[in-house]
Amino acid sequence: MKKQMNIVVVGLGNIGSYFYDYLVKNKNTIFNKTNTIPNILFVSAKSFTKKRNIMPPKKIWLKNFLSSTKIKEVDIIVELIGGAEGPAKKLVFEALKNKKHVITANKALVAKYGDILSKIAEKNKVNFEFEAAVCGGIPIVRAIKEGLIANNINKIYGILNGTSNYILSSMDGDKLEYKDALLKAQKLGYAESDPTSDVNGDDVASKLKILTALAFNSFINNRTILVEGIKNVDQIDITNANNLGYKIKLIGVAETVKNKIIQRVHPALIKKNSYIAKIDGVLNAVIVESKPVGKTVLQGDGAGPGPTTSSLISDLCSVLRGNIKFPFALPNKKRKILAFENINNKKFSAYLRIDVKDRHGILSDVTKVMAENKISVKRLIQNPTINKKNASIIMTTHEAKNSSFIKLLLILKRKNYIINIPKIIRIENV
Amino acid sequence: MKKQMNIVVVGLGNIGSYFYDYLVKNKNTIFNKTNTIPNILFVSAKSFTKKRNIMPPKKIWLKNFLSSTKIKEVDIIVELIGGAEGPAKKLVFEALKNKKHVITANKALVAKYGDILSKIAEKNKVNFEFEAAVCGGIPIVRAIKEGLIANNINKIYGILNGTSNYILSSMDGDKLEYKDALLKAQKLGYAESDPTSDVNGDDVASKLKILTALAFNSFINNRTILVEGIKNVDQIDITNANNLGYKIKLIGVAETVKNKIIQRVHPALIKKNSYIAKIDGVLNAVIVESKPVGKTVLQGDGAGPGPTTSSLISDLCSVLRGNIKFPFALPNKKRKILAFENINNKKFSAYLRIDVKDRHGILSDVTKVMAENKISVKRLIQNPTINKKNASIIMTTHEAKNSSFIKLLLILKRKNYIINIPKIIRIENV
Repeated sequence: MKKQMNIVVVGLGNIGSYFYDYLVKNKNTIFNKTNTIPNILFVSAKSFTKKRNIMPPKKIWLKNFLSSTKIKEVDIIVELIGGAEGPAKKLVFEALKNKKHVITANKALVAKYGDILSKIAEKNKVNFEFEAAVCGGIPIVRAIKEGLIANNINKIYGILNGTSNYILSSMDGDKLEYKDALLKAQKLGYAESDPTSDVNGDDVASKLKILTALAFNSFINNRTILVEGIKNVDQIDITNANNLGYKIKLIGVAETVKNKIIQRVHPALIKKNSYIAKIDGVLNAVIVESKPVGKTVLQGDGAGPGPTTSSLISDLCSVLRGNIKFPFALPNKKRKILAFENINNKKFSAYLRIDVKDRHGILSDVTKVMAENKISVKRLIQNPTINKKNASIIMTTHEAKNSSFIKLLLILKRKNYIINIPKIIRIENV
Repeated sequence: MKKQMNIVVVGLGNIGSYFYDYLVKNKNTIFNKTNTIPNILFVSAKSFTKKRNIMPPKKIWLKNFLSSTKIKEVDIIVELIGGAEGPAKKLVFEALKNKKHVITANKALVAKYGDILSKIAEKNKVNFEFEAAVCGGIPIVRAIKEGLIANNINKIYGILNGTSNYILSSMDGDKLEYKDALLKAQKLGYAESDPTSDVNGDDVASKLKILTALAFNSFINNRTILVEGIKNVDQIDITNANNLGYKIKLIGVAETVKNKIIQRVHPALIKKNSYIAKIDGVLNAVIVESKPVGKTVLQGDGAGPGPTTSSLISDLCSVLRGNIKFPFALPNKKRKILAFENINNKKFSAYLRIDVKDRHGILSDVTKVMAENKISVKRLIQNPTINKKNASIIMTTHEAKNSSFIKLLLILKRKNYIINIPKIIRIENV
């Protein structure tokens, strides 16, 4: 008799519907590649009668999604509800506790509870798979856990959010202001009606925390991470960056510096001719720097039902093939408790834009405050006048401590010649 | 008691020595990630006394490398001899027949005998792993077999040879002629003393055949493949390409057109702003176009002991974890017998350089011959005179059948006004 595994799909939104449909249509192909029949035993979602592109037969409808964790015949639960708390959390915890394999696309949940969930999965000898939680269709989780397993990773970074990258690309290419670029992204379906977590850096932060744990064999660290979004980037900053030879990108970076890990998410000026600067639109790209392999780049579509389903099926096949693996590549007791470094000691050079009243002596005062905070000017671009009364001081700086920039910002904000909150955008050499 | 698997490393050249050393030093890390101790039982190579960076203890030296296939305690044989025939072939066949897992970096062997070897491995329920055979450290084999397993691939292509890419980059960047760029590459260790298989396209062809079989679930096809190298690309062609907005790259492409597979390796003009055009130096890049994920890009170091070891260890961990997988992702009886299309019906636009004696009426004769062969001029760049007597007709064409270009070449070669063999380099829209 052919081997079969029974699957419950919970959540039938955009992703869930696409995944269900794809799985039904590709049952045979998946059997051929895994020697195990992927049998959808049940589906569950908030409402059975809701209009959807797919029509699962009524007999496989499960009214109480949580009951799937108690049904003996169920082998695999695919969680596509979303959100770090509430029903998704309940489902995944219950499923693993009841020795069901879990596959999820839920980055918020994995970033928040991944360590505990991973322990339960290991104890109960079931899979806890989350390839789809990080960068949609890019097989980066599997690449770190398997393809690059030999390597000692010292840095992992990239463009991990398609929405914000689309907005920045569009501000650059179409000369749009942030709010217009966001509207355009929403119109095209690249941004949600509530884009908060995409534009404020939280989405990137979740992915980065997961990647950090995988890359450095450490536990997830939710506290020591810098998270800045793109809302404060203006069209004029993009233009200035261009004139200076840079693009502005929202990046996520995790790296080891003196055996401590730094995690950070922020917009950055990136040299135009660098690889990252050329990743435009909704694309994602992840770069892994490690030994002995060197630099590895993975690029692809970071979101959407198709790419996400690609990753979900890859997780499913791994479970169907019977490969029980540690969710974070190592047994929990072998994962390291590494120190995480606060960002404040890290040095950056930066781009500054300080909008001021056009009066004598201001530039001299600004540079004096900078000097007092150990920040020196590298290049001064004085300064397209905004209007008759005001001016914009635009400059790049030499490297200085992150804390120095924060102090500078605090002091400048209090000066009476300052019009807007000064912009400080870090320059990244990648 | 801890689980242990016994390994024999055969071949201790650059790659073999690095791999041996890395494995010895990272035994613990690998145990942590796989729960199985990777124990080097024996090593073997042509001569024990040869000077090497590594010094395996004499007691693990195996005089007759083939005997490793008969030793009961041996679980895994790592073949790092190289070459499609001779000792490497003997070793791998004997090993699989005797139910030993095999890991190899030998692309020529896999491209030639991969199908038969895969059958033996499947029958004997052992692994036959060859991540290191394709693009060094880029985990492309694993990406196709696992990370992208859900996808229906319709095209896979890229820059698959670092040596030829370095030479072309250097001809472009340093304005060198082919032979000088080759010398430079040899001096820097990027080209071997006999660079034949790298520059004539054979190395790319081997990799492409393996990728084709993996991507399209087909058997390896060694017959229907176009292979052209870079030896006929002159510095002036690179300059002309630049002026036309292109870079010249040696590409490998496998694609399905009307359910038939086309495999081809040749230099091509690629638009400057495309991703592929920007892959410079010894880098490799593979692009997979598939549904539902879209376009996936993997980029990294394509050769060298470090990157190759990264892939070898990834294969090793897969074996240590006990994941028996079909070498080509599917059971042999499920792999498809797909039709392969001869290149001749495929249409290309092309760049032509025809060096002629500078006489009246030649351009008109050339375009007449072109018209007779259904090739029409898209853009004519007439023509920096080479010297007083001679001229160069440089043009790009509209799309025409590959066979038409071959005929054109044959006819032009016979014309008495032709000085050199005309250059025809395909233009690729990627």
